[in-house]
Amino acid sequence: MARSRIGIWLIGARGGVATTTLVGLSALKKGLVGTTGLVTHLPRFAHLELPDWKDFVVGGHEIREVPLLDEAMRLATESRAFDAALVTRCRAELNRIDSRICRGTIHNVGRKIAGLASSEVPRRESPREAIDRIGEDLKQFAESQRLDHLIVVNVASTEPAVDTSAIPPTWEELEELLDRPRKCPLPASSLYAIAALDRGASYINFTPSLGSAPAAIDDLARLRKTRHFGCDGKTGETLLKSTLAPMFGQRNLDVMSWVGHNIFGNMDGQVLDDPVNKKTKVQSKNQLLGKILGYEPDSLVSIEYIKSLGDWKTAWDHVHFTGFLGTPMCFQFIWQGCDSLLAAPLVLDLIRLTDLARRRGETGLMTFLASFFKSPHGVDEHGFVRQFQMLEAWAQSPGRQ
Amino acid sequence: MARSRIGIWLIGARGGVATTTLVGLSALKKGLVGTTGLVTHLPRFAHLELPDWKDFVVGGHEIREVPLLDEAMRLATESRAFDAALVTRCRAELNRIDSRICRGTIHNVGRKIAGLASSEVPRRESPREAIDRIGEDLKQFAESQRLDHLIVVNVASTEPAVDTSAIPPTWEELEELLDRPRKCPLPASSLYAIAALDRGASYINFTPSLGSAPAAIDDLARLRKTRHFGCDGKTGETLLKSTLAPMFGQRNLDVMSWVGHNIFGNMDGQVLDDPVNKKTKVQSKNQLLGKILGYEPDSLVSIEYIKSLGDWKTAWDHVHFTGFLGTPMCFQFIWQGCDSLLAAPLVLDLIRLTDLARRRGETGLMTFLASFFKSPHGVDEHGFVRQFQMLEAWAQSPGRQ
Amino acid sequence: MARSRIGIWLIGARGGVATTTLVGLSALKKGLVGTTGLVTHLPRFAHLELPDWKDFVVGGHEIREVPLLDEAMRLATESRAFDAALVTRCRAELNRIDSRICRGTIHNVGRKIAGLASSEVPRRESPREAIDRIGEDLKQFAESQRLDHLIVVNVASTEPAVDTSAIPPTWEELEELLDRPRKCPLPASSLYAIAALDRGASYINFTPSLGSAPAAIDDLARLRKTRHFGCDGKTGETLLKSTLAPMFGQRNLDVMSWVGHNIFGNMDGQVLDDPVNKKTKVQSKNQLLGKILGYEPDSLVSIEYIKSLGDWKTAWDHVHFTGFLGTPMCFQFIWQGCDSLLAAPLVLDLIRLTDLARRRGETGLMTFLASFFKSPHGVDEHGFVRQFQMLEAWAQSPGRQ
Amino acid sequence: MARSRIGIWLIGARGGVATTTLVGLSALKKGLVGTTGLVTHLPRFAHLELPDWKDFVVGGHEIREVPLLDEAMRLATESRAFDAALVTRCRAELNRIDSRICRGTIHNVGRKIAGLASSEVPRRESPREAIDRIGEDLKQFAESQRLDHLIVVNVASTEPAVDTSAIPPTWEELEELLDRPRKCPLPASSLYAIAALDRGASYINFTPSLGSAPAAIDDLARLRKTRHFGCDGKTGETLLKSTLAPMFGQRNLDVMSWVGHNIFGNMDGQVLDDPVNKKTKVQSKNQLLGKILGYEPDSLVSIEYIKSLGDWKTAWDHVHFTGFLGTPMCFQFIWQGCDSLLAAPLVLDLIRLTDLARRRGETGLMTFLASFFKSPHGVDEHGFVRQFQMLEAWAQSPGRQ
Repeated sequence: MARSRIGIWLIGARGGVATTTLVGLSALKKGLVGTTGLVTHLPRFAHLELPDWKDFVVGGHEIREVPLLDEAMRLATESRAFDAALVTRCRAELNRIDSRICRGTIHNVGRKIAGLASSEVPRRESPREAIDRIGEDLKQFAESQRLDHLIVVNVASTEPAVDTSAIPPTWEELEELLDRPRKCPLPASSLYAIAALDRGASYINFTPSLGSAPAAIDDLARLRKTRHFGCDGKTGETLLKSTLAPMFGQRNLDVMSWVGHNIFGNMDGQVLDDPVNKKTKVQSKNQLLGKILGYEPDSLVSIEYIKSLGDWKTAWDHVHFTGFLGTPMCFQFIWQGCDSLLAAPLVLDLIRLTDLARRRGETGLMTFLASFFKSPHGVDEHGFVRQFQMLEAWAQSPGRQ
Repeated sequence: MARSRIGIWLIGARGGVATTTLVGLSALKKGLVGTTGLVTHLPRFAHLELPDWKDFVVGGHEIREVPLLDEAMRLATESRAFDAALVTRCRAELNRIDSRICRGTIHNVGRKIAGLASSEVPRRESPREAIDRIGEDLKQFAESQRLDHLIVVNVASTEPAVDTSAIPPTWEELEELLDRPRKCPLPASSLYAIAALDRGASYINFTPSLGSAPAAIDDLARLRKTRHFGCDGKTGETLLKSTLAPMFGQRNLDVMSWVGHNIFGNMDGQVLDDPVNKKTKVQSKNQLLGKILGYEPDSLVSIEYIKSLGDWKTAWDHVHFTGFLGTPMCFQFIWQGCDSLLAAPLVLDLIRLTDLARRRGETGLMTFLASFFKSPHGVDEHGFVRQFQMLEAWAQSPGRQ
Repeated sequence: MARSRIGIWLIGARGGVATTTLVGLSALKKGLVGTTGLVTHLPRFAHLELPDWKDFVVGGHEIREVPLLDEAMRLATESRAFDAALVTRCRAELNRIDSRICRGTIHNVGRKIAGLASSEVPRRESPREAIDRIGEDLKQFAESQRLDHLIVVNVASTEPAVDTSAIPPTWEELEELLDRPRKCPLPASSLYAIAALDRGASYINFTPSLGSAPAAIDDLARLRKTRHFGCDGKTGETLLKSTLAPMFGQRNLDVMSWVGHNIFGNMDGQVLDDPVNKKTKVQSKNQLLGKILGYEPDSLVSIEYIKSLGDWKTAWDHVHFTGFLGTPMCFQFIWQGCDSLLAAPLVLDLIRLTDLARRRGETGLMTFLASFFKSPHGVDEHGFVRQFQMLEAWAQSPGRQ
Repeated sequence: MARSRIGIWLIGARGGVATTTLVGLSALKKGLVGTTGLVTHLPRFAHLELPDWKDFVVGGHEIREVPLLDEAMRLATESRAFDAALVTRCRAELNRIDSRICRGTIHNVGRKIAGLASSEVPRRESPREAIDRIGEDLKQFAESQRLDHLIVVNVASTEPAVDTSAIPPTWEELEELLDRPRKCPLPASSLYAIAALDRGASYINFTPSLGSAPAAIDDLARLRKTRHFGCDGKTGETLLKSTLAPMFGQRNLDVMSWVGHNIFGNMDGQVLDDPVNKKTKVQSKNQLLGKILGYEPDSLVSIEYIKSLGDWKTAWDHVHFTGFLGTPMCFQFIWQGCDSLLAAPLVLDLIRLTDLARRRGETGLMTFLASFFKSPHGVDEHGFVRQFQMLEAWAQSPGRQ
């Protein structure tokens, strides 16, 4: 196949997930690292015509001013996420990318995130103004890099929950609200989505923020014949839940309670330390049990910021269930994973698969990506293996999902 | 549908799994307990015409002389497996079953198991004599109870591993060896299987012992137009492994090592304390990782007898894996389950499903039961969810698997 | 030694700890159970002239109307805390005690606890009226039972935190406030303490509530030549912390963070589900790390109500520490203990030791009891072994502590 | 105080513990790292006149030929034990030390360890010849470096257990056996001890090997007016056991079983993979429970070699105990520590304290060091806090222990 030039545009481009994604992409381009953790490198997907690492060029939006290279070094030394020598060898590429990162928007991101923003970030934009500014950045990137396809991926911090009842169901109606900030509850993640989709770019929401979830934004994607999906990358505790809960259901064991405590210390953790941001995340993590089991066990999910852990997400889950003859039993797990390293390869996988979807002419929701997300839009199946079968089926039979 | 009379014949009829199965069956007949833990009571199987608990009558073989009621009380009080009051209410039924339990055989069961046998158990039978004697017990049971279907289930202790290279591939050849004990390496579990299948009964091997695994015994089952399956009920740590390992594979995480330590204190544990018996079990538990992942991680499985734990199997598993950029991460789980309570409902499920297979006219290996076993005969799929889909498919489309 | 008649008066006399204490005491009187869990039955204390179980007679205060026997049965069947048959055999004794339980006070206990109270409990008493009424109940009990010594033990639910800055330092000043409810912030636990100490009874506060902590109440105890101690029985996670933290300190390992998550489902848990009550508890659990280590690690303690766990307190603690050359390491523990069963023997130990302190003529704070409490009044040592050495020293050398 | 020149002589000088000790010592000399993990840097020992890091000069024996620097780099990169940059900065010092490492002996070290030895290591020495050769190396080191004090520390791999019944109780008798290899069961660790003590050096046995344990070798130490102690540094699981077991005892909880599974992947682990070597270690780890509790719980200790873990010792301990009224409860811990990093600072502490003992004129067993060892010679106290109090007492009151 003729090679395309594909643009990756990261929202939150100097955050932990983005930084790790960029270190990884740079290292893959140079052949410095293997493909562990990359789903699209499984043998069963070897027949797919997926883009090569060399086909990608990267830019993004960010609200902080810290150099990308410093962030990469901090992950290497403070969190021991990867080897500092790897960062050094990718230095030139990382600096090149850093120069293409523009200032983002803090429209409706909540106090906690806004507090992290550089003073250069515009404080008083209407939604329309923010979208136009973002869109212009995307356009310049696409033109200057002569891109065949631009994919915008949201890996910024979790925004506070939004009351979506005020959002109208069609793009036509929503579009009218963009000039009336008081009437328009859209947060930054949705403004980026609109800017991207309106210009025909693809959009992926890797966070629990609102993003492209509203029906009106899906409407826009279909009108512009482009594609999108989300939300909230499934990397750790929830991945385990969606793997384990089906087993309890299929063995007819009665889950009385499922308690999950998560502790970690990266910037994501700092933002989630604010209850309004945390609420968005906990909702996304907590809903799947009822959907998988068919009933609602007593359930608790906590996420706490513990600085010393850095990027290492540690989760303790305690599952209390009843077996035959009503006897209570117990299953517990402890997960110690480096969050950014679990997220980054999925971001790269999603980009490769989204590009294939474009070449296959698919538009709207990319439901075949369900296994990558905690809250897959429009997908009722929450069991991991069955979600993964949706991906396998799509890989086998283009066009059918 | 017209009700059948179905006989359950348990090998090891006063062991922990059998005793719990019989307390449970008795309690289900009386409506004293719910259906938690019974796979065949899941809503998705509600359309199947499965036998009612009242359709079953029970007998069995056993090599020890302890009263069944005492064993049940011991599980209630020493292991806190279930409520002693439940046993009291099922006393009459348990005593009735106890009166139908015959003396088993200790042919080739190894020193450890033989040491548990009552002095009344015959010490010097040829394989042929043992089979004839067992067969006669089965025949008397079937006739006296006017059974439509007899299902023999092996829930006896794990026998030492057998060198199967000396077992010929056809029933015709194997049959000739039965009078030559020196040439015939078959252990008790296989003699029970032969006695059962030769008389048209169905046979289920819930243990890791040899049972009906030899091709020659499958040959016999097909000649007699009956059915069988095994081996080794998947109740705890291995159930978790077969649930979790596919996730590591599908996320392309590189499992470097998977260590599992099991401790428990029931009679099964006492028998496994002998290395020759333990070897059979560990082989059964250890093989699936390579089959699921496609490579062999460094793997260790230990099973240790710790008296104080009684029937409570506690397992600690430590999974050491590499994520993106080669960084090592860790997943651990702790399983605290009452072994007999996890096994008993599966035994009841297997019996109900085997009866349906008979009514559907199916013979030979019942591969649709793969999700119930650690080492399902003739099945390459070891991922739990996909095995369960085999059961769902069979339930939907009679005749096709 | 001549036997005394000793009265035990329990505040919260039908709660989980009290009920288990009374089942245990009744069973010990009848010789139905062993002495596991009782510190005063260790060989090293065999020389002490401690009262016999038969010397005790029990009464108490309670705000709920449920029969004691029902509470005992609920602990046996719902929480599997002990054997239901044991309760049955102690039925007569438990009913006898139940008849001696009077209505308590809900003065300043907070909304959560007040919501549990029977409608018969007085709603509008001044502190003085409550103390008088309680004191009268104690007096009648002591006289009717011809007691040599009355020991009041608070095992009621945790009250909300109190602003103690308004409490004057001497009994003379505090006494004046008792008629002025608006000026008197004392909660019920302190009113019980005053009523007890003012009549010469001993007082033990097994909960984190205020109780006898104010200096003015200690002043009263010394004026009346009686004794008291608290607070907050050390039974589970904090017991472990006070055992483990000294080791980290003595090895000069740098504890960066110590996270403890507690889940349980008894009434104590229900009350702690209210943040104002929980605050009192968390403070009591959280303070000792800094005192033991000499610096304040990042620390988090959560207590969550999970109904299915009943009386089984499950705690997960994650200790993140730095070793030599600055490398981070990790220690985790999981505690699964039946809370009432861990508390009850300590209550019995405290009563026996308090009686010995009376016979030794000791008054004021019984600091030798520090090892029993999370927040021992007037004791700076929080390491468990060194606290235990204080008890051993007291046992060896009467009068010196 | 006038500075002394102190020699450190490490047996197993390029093993994991030695290498980490030397990286650490070099880094401390240069002020590159802090004092975390060093017991002698606790404020409570600040008044002691302990040697400075600059006072030390290092040599040693080793049977393998790998460069020390490579071993250090391997620990940094494969095990992530410390930062590779630290090794680079200590390169010159490490190379200088490496040049002073002599060939050791493999006399009676067992097949596993002998298999690791370079072909240059003498294969057929009598005990006498080995001692003389070792002694000569020590003498040359002491003379060339003008040492005031030489301390030999055994940090070599664990030798197989020795039948000590054949070892006579006095040095005079033992000395006669040194020329009769068949009659002399002493392993290498004891030959090093003899060579050291005979020349007036101090000797520390940080491993579970025999070392200076025989009474005859203690006799030699006293004759030569020098000092020694061991054995088996207490760094991880056993440290926890000796911290936790006293609490179970002091609360009169009945420990029914204590199971400990250890997994790790360094060379120590490889050697322990041989059952004859493992036996020595397990004995050392397993004895203390009975001594602390006063009864023998059902106990199991396993140590397994899992390559992927490198130097990270992971231990899971499961403590099953009975509380009041006989109800079983459970405590579990998981320890994830970098073994060499836990051992190295203790080696440095032991050296500093041993030097102080010399200046105080103490000879024979240094029992005040008990808290550092799993099996402290001649000490019955196994509880960690009380052992630590022995050290504190010694530090406070010179001469008295």
